[in-house]
Amino acid sequence: MYPLASRMASAKPSFVREILKVANRKDIISFAGGLPDPSLFDVEGIQAATETVFSSNSSAALQYGATDGYLGFKQQLAAVMATRGVATVNLEQLIVTTGSQQGIDLVSKILIDPDDVVLVERPAYLAAVQVFELYQAQMRGIEQDGDGIQIPDLERAILECKKDGKRPKFIYTVATFGNPSGSTLSLERRKQLLEIAVREEIMVIEDDPYSELRFSGTNLPPLIALCEDIPNASNFVMYMSTLSKFVAPGLRLGWIIAPTELIQPLTIVKQAADLHSSSFAQYVAATYLETGRLNQMLPKIREAYGAKGNAMMEAIAQAFPAGMLEFNAPSGGMFIWAKMADGVDTMSLVKKAVDNGIIFVPGAGFFPDAKRSNYLRLSFATPNLEQIKEGIKRLARAIVD
Amino acid sequence: MYPLASRMASAKPSFVREILKVANRKDIISFAGGLPDPSLFDVEGIQAATETVFSSNSSAALQYGATDGYLGFKQQLAAVMATRGVATVNLEQLIVTTGSQQGIDLVSKILIDPDDVVLVERPAYLAAVQVFELYQAQMRGIEQDGDGIQIPDLERAILECKKDGKRPKFIYTVATFGNPSGSTLSLERRKQLLEIAVREEIMVIEDDPYSELRFSGTNLPPLIALCEDIPNASNFVMYMSTLSKFVAPGLRLGWIIAPTELIQPLTIVKQAADLHSSSFAQYVAATYLETGRLNQMLPKIREAYGAKGNAMMEAIAQAFPAGMLEFNAPSGGMFIWAKMADGVDTMSLVKKAVDNGIIFVPGAGFFPDAKRSNYLRLSFATPNLEQIKEGIKRLARAIVD
Repeated sequence: MYPLASRMASAKPSFVREILKVANRKDIISFAGGLPDPSLFDVEGIQAATETVFSSNSSAALQYGATDGYLGFKQQLAAVMATRGVATVNLEQLIVTTGSQQGIDLVSKILIDPDDVVLVERPAYLAAVQVFELYQAQMRGIEQDGDGIQIPDLERAILECKKDGKRPKFIYTVATFGNPSGSTLSLERRKQLLEIAVREEIMVIEDDPYSELRFSGTNLPPLIALCEDIPNASNFVMYMSTLSKFVAPGLRLGWIIAPTELIQPLTIVKQAADLHSSSFAQYVAATYLETGRLNQMLPKIREAYGAKGNAMMEAIAQAFPAGMLEFNAPSGGMFIWAKMADGVDTMSLVKKAVDNGIIFVPGAGFFPDAKRSNYLRLSFATPNLEQIKEGIKRLARAIVD
Repeated sequence: MYPLASRMASAKPSFVREILKVANRKDIISFAGGLPDPSLFDVEGIQAATETVFSSNSSAALQYGATDGYLGFKQQLAAVMATRGVATVNLEQLIVTTGSQQGIDLVSKILIDPDDVVLVERPAYLAAVQVFELYQAQMRGIEQDGDGIQIPDLERAILECKKDGKRPKFIYTVATFGNPSGSTLSLERRKQLLEIAVREEIMVIEDDPYSELRFSGTNLPPLIALCEDIPNASNFVMYMSTLSKFVAPGLRLGWIIAPTELIQPLTIVKQAADLHSSSFAQYVAATYLETGRLNQMLPKIREAYGAKGNAMMEAIAQAFPAGMLEFNAPSGGMFIWAKMADGVDTMSLVKKAVDNGIIFVPGAGFFPDAKRSNYLRLSFATPNLEQIKEGIKRLARAIVD
């Protein structure tokens, strides 16, 4: 074997991606992936936007562009942020990325040295865990409940870091409709988290892919929208999001908003990573967002995912004995994070599930610093309502006996 | 300042990109950037391909896709490779990247530990140098002439590494129409390089963005096409290329072909970097390549760059005193790499050039391990013939006095 860099020593292929290969089988209903329902893509609108780009901006859309992104697209993203409670975004603080996955990678690249501590949710987003592993971070988990990370446990983790002579490089959180937890950080805890970040001088990385997908309850402001009320907080929050969950993942477009002092480092690593994200995709997306069609699409998208989420919760209530699968009902997003009895190993249920024509993601991989084997992540995003009902029946057949 | 990772200590913004900001001024003729001439984009063909994608594959093009790339696109890239002398590509050894820039980043990520030695051409491609710096490699240069890297100097460099107890992690080369050198590795040296790679067990990273742009002389096989004649060589060559220079950079699509054992590590870091490259761009590019329109476009593209390159060389001969700007006439690509007298500092000429309405890239940045200030890179890719003639006149006004 050719000698690899030491960061590759513990790198392994994503188990979810391996599972997704099985999920492509026609006879399998998949609760595994977080793929948006393609029937909710605004194909007509995106096609019209593409035609506009070809008739008005084809040379620029096909040419190299600025590392930080196409200005017209950045302006549209600022308009998106206004709907999320950030009235004015300084466009110089916004960098376009190749999906929010790249945001996680770039932030890690500028901040993480080997053995640095990164605080993550317990459970944590798998693809972020993989990035932090590649940067050889030491991950420490913060317990979550239905209202997101538990602040006393965050305080405990920071204290333990101090005892070990460590200052965490950052806290990474999917605060709204977590992946896999489905839980949402309460407003009170959001403020507490920011106050701790300022007090301890620890950056909070807020990954916000799902907030457009709320189907019950009322919107909560992202952490970055709360900064103006908390002195100095804006120096300790980085925000990232993506078009993947509410426009189309195939465009591979996301963005980071960061404190001014971190923009130059981020731009340098972005340039080294891929020069810039696809101009073509950025022009199409900018033109699409400018049309305002999203105002018609978003209610449909939210309604559809709400119907799916509710269908899955009802089907579980019907198919499973009470208490066998415990979960906090999500108010949005794509996932139900179900807990089984202590001692159950959901990994060992995968084969039986596949034999019954259903696939899910066992929870163990979402715990980088803890061993918990009795969880499973069920995505209701991709299957239709019939498939959800049938899939839960199959799941029950596979695991109830 | 928030504490950054140690890899950022020496990171600085690209001087070329800073210069390109000036180059956007309307009164400036730019010889600085390597931007393809947008009049050579096949807008009509790409637009037609996009329409086909919307009418036949819209859901898949807008959805998440495989980390290694869309199979239909990979098949088209294999067909491109066949025209470059690689008759059959094992598609499992090919990974789609977000431009070849990402190829450089991914390869570095799987191979480079801090202080590892990377052998580069002297002068070397600037954006690759930046990547190697971010991975904290120790770069050592190999002298080049009009026929590419000098084999005796490569042997010397390897010997010196051995003396220092180092085995170079890889040799990075733009063997065909180098950036900035414009020079092309001769066939004999290609074979010698591969033999050394096998003998010393050092990976050769062949970056091949320009080979479609030959306007004089006959095609040379890329290193990867020569592997079948040299036992074991295929284990020591990675090939990367891009659509940027002969289709459109705005699609941000490139590819890597690597030895089988490196595909899993590359796939892991690709997934962590951005999950996959834009499905939308891949479907459009695959559909475009499938039409065969490139067969009509490529002769036009080669002719146009040939006319530009020749116009620049003639204009230099007319505007400059003999011997003031020395260069090897390139047989393709986008650059003339001109040497001035020893002691001249081309960096100090930039301001005067801008004052005269012309901009170029001073050569110092292309030498990561040597101090040479008397070179300048002149790109003939973007300006038209009139601008090239006028630009060389301006350049002469700026620097002859």
